Amino acid sequence: MSIIVQKFGGSSVANIERLELVADHIIREKEKGNQVVVVVSAQGKTTDKLITEEKEITDEPDKREHDVLVSTGEQITIAKLSMLLIKKGYKSVSLTGWQIPIITNSEYNNGRIRYIHNKTIEDYLNSDNIVVVAGFQGVDENGNITTLGRGGSDTTAVALAASLKAERCDIYTDVDGVFTSDPRIVKNVKQLSNVSYEEMLEMSSMGAKVLHNRCVEIGQKYNVPIYVKSTFEKESVGTLVSKNNLEDLVISGVTKDDYISRITIVGLENKIGKTYELFKILSNNRINVDVIVQSFGEYITKDIAFTVKMNDLNKTLQVLNENKDKIGAKDILHTENLSKVSIIGVGIANKPGVATGMFEALYENNINMHMITTSEIKISVLVNSNMADLAVKAIHEKFID
Amino acid sequence: MSIIVQKFGGSSVANIERLELVADHIIREKEKGNQVVVVVSAQGKTTDKLITEEKEITDEPDKREHDVLVSTGEQITIAKLSMLLIKKGYKSVSLTGWQIPIITNSEYNNGRIRYIHNKTIEDYLNSDNIVVVAGFQGVDENGNITTLGRGGSDTTAVALAASLKAERCDIYTDVDGVFTSDPRIVKNVKQLSNVSYEEMLEMSSMGAKVLHNRCVEIGQKYNVPIYVKSTFEKESVGTLVSKNNLEDLVISGVTKDDYISRITIVGLENKIGKTYELFKILSNNRINVDVIVQSFGEYITKDIAFTVKMNDLNKTLQVLNENKDKIGAKDILHTENLSKVSIIGVGIANKPGVATGMFEALYENNINMHMITTSEIKISVLVNSNMADLAVKAIHEKFID
Repeated sequence: MSIIVQKFGGSSVANIERLELVADHIIREKEKGNQVVVVVSAQGKTTDKLITEEKEITDEPDKREHDVLVSTGEQITIAKLSMLLIKKGYKSVSLTGWQIPIITNSEYNNGRIRYIHNKTIEDYLNSDNIVVVAGFQGVDENGNITTLGRGGSDTTAVALAASLKAERCDIYTDVDGVFTSDPRIVKNVKQLSNVSYEEMLEMSSMGAKVLHNRCVEIGQKYNVPIYVKSTFEKESVGTLVSKNNLEDLVISGVTKDDYISRITIVGLENKIGKTYELFKILSNNRINVDVIVQSFGEYITKDIAFTVKMNDLNKTLQVLNENKDKIGAKDILHTENLSKVSIIGVGIANKPGVATGMFEALYENNINMHMITTSEIKISVLVNSNMADLAVKAIHEKFID
Repeated sequence: MSIIVQKFGGSSVANIERLELVADHIIREKEKGNQVVVVVSAQGKTTDKLITEEKEITDEPDKREHDVLVSTGEQITIAKLSMLLIKKGYKSVSLTGWQIPIITNSEYNNGRIRYIHNKTIEDYLNSDNIVVVAGFQGVDENGNITTLGRGGSDTTAVALAASLKAERCDIYTDVDGVFTSDPRIVKNVKQLSNVSYEEMLEMSSMGAKVLHNRCVEIGQKYNVPIYVKSTFEKESVGTLVSKNNLEDLVISGVTKDDYISRITIVGLENKIGKTYELFKILSNNRINVDVIVQSFGEYITKDIAFTVKMNDLNKTLQVLNENKDKIGAKDILHTENLSKVSIIGVGIANKPGVATGMFEALYENNINMHMITTSEIKISVLVNSNMADLAVKAIHEKFID
């Protein structure tokens, strides 16, 4: 008998009508002879409502108590869904994070799963129960309630699937699956039937973001096939995220990140340790750097360019100027309002035509590139933000349409 | 250092303004140098709201899942109250039933406390924390969430006080304390400054019901002094429920129970086992009998009268008639719409004047008595319901006014 883990987010369980739809999906898997573990989020706006009430009390809630408060949201959903399944004639039991238990570290509001005890769930599955699990929550080794932070319920689902050696993990959401680009920018987006973990991770910035990187990383590490499906479409084919991209399609997506600025350090002394010193200063000031490009260091000086988010720009410039002497740079330049446009696909590295095609599409549309970086499965270029949508469309058209 | 347990009910924690009042009561005890354990209920209508939502799903919710659902109400309150205390500069930690743990049997919706582990609470108290506990809930030995049923939060508070050997348990409520009668019937009710556990148990049916019998019974068993106080009156003197009634007052209260019917079994064979058989039939049919009076059995037949709640009357008569031959009664009579009026006070048994005074008060007001029963601390009479308020007033006036 196979174990299937299904996960339903907040909008999928928002009210009784939607819980009925969710029950249909669950029962369909159960009737196929599978053992079913269901992970759910808090209903609709429940968490927002609790946080609004919390703000009436304090702007800086104690982190431990915050987790005690918000973890009630998922507990309400599991009880309701479980009693609905029982009413429909199925054996079902709900389990909170501490009942399983899902053991996390003690970082409140942003816990990391350490391990999951399978026995309680397995015993219930073996006595024919549908097990309904509260997502987003765990318990630390001292019995304190923790929550997992962003992407928490997806992470619970994939981690459970890994721990229970489930056949697959189905993430039900309000979109049909993973698409080749953001449908708000590109008209002819295509739904991907397959995508690899690596590609999914690279596509995390995609407008139609469907899976949090944390859960994809766990899926990759433990090789859990993840299906992204629609709760609301009965015949949803969905997208399979797994080890290999089984499709012929070289390009799995074209994505865009906005609000990027580029900083160029001109005339840095070409000496061992100088680059390290520069980025140590930035990380000590909690500035996240994304892309880094360095000119080849064959001369006495070199130039380094990197990108930061627009809202980190002022702080970055301030920190760099305060440390200008220490860094020993000739000049610090910056360019604002850039976007990073990327093309993603397994095997891009081995297909030189992809880069050429991408540059061609941009050239044909008179779009200037401020920086180029490439990886095994991704080519990214920086363009002016006002040209970014056009760039996405042009590249999508060249490769996918 | 003394441990004080304080309990605040749903209306006392209904909103942020009231939580502030509650925090004042807590901080006052803490500033006196006490270790403070606080037990709270769900806020205001939270539990009702959850049950309304539950009814949308099913009319017969699974009992286990019902407890998972409603126990979230208290969990929300403990987190909020604890973060409020932390904001005010105090160390505080919230604990759910399973975190302590409060171990109960596995009877969902109506769990009974088996034992309480003190260590977690004591450790937090010893590191200067105010410990905020979710009332009404526990966990069974298999890690299932249970709730304690009616009077649950009061029961949690008094049981914790007993287990922690607290100096006392303060039950904060929306009335000032325990009164000699129902203020809606009698004008000149007096607040009692002291009342014994026994008297409090006998007064449980009092209109102004303030303490559930379960918590009084635990208080009696472990000799926990219980103070009933008002959350909303800063200078509330309250009523102390303890081993002894320390007051001179012989009479501590006059109470009334409505919706009672009396059934008389006429001509029951005066043979050993016949009475047992009668009441076995009733209990097998889950009929609760309150007062029982039997005529002295010196003849071949005897009469037995007993009372049941009005809404059990039809079922009782049906059961009795079905078993008429087995019981061997000549006739089964009944009287509807009666009330039980009681006078309560330690030492009544040794003061024959009390019964006389009570009967006199009824005679003076032309009130007929259908049945009389007495105990060590209570004398009850059945009267027609339409005369019950007058009876309470007349008796109260004779003894207390």
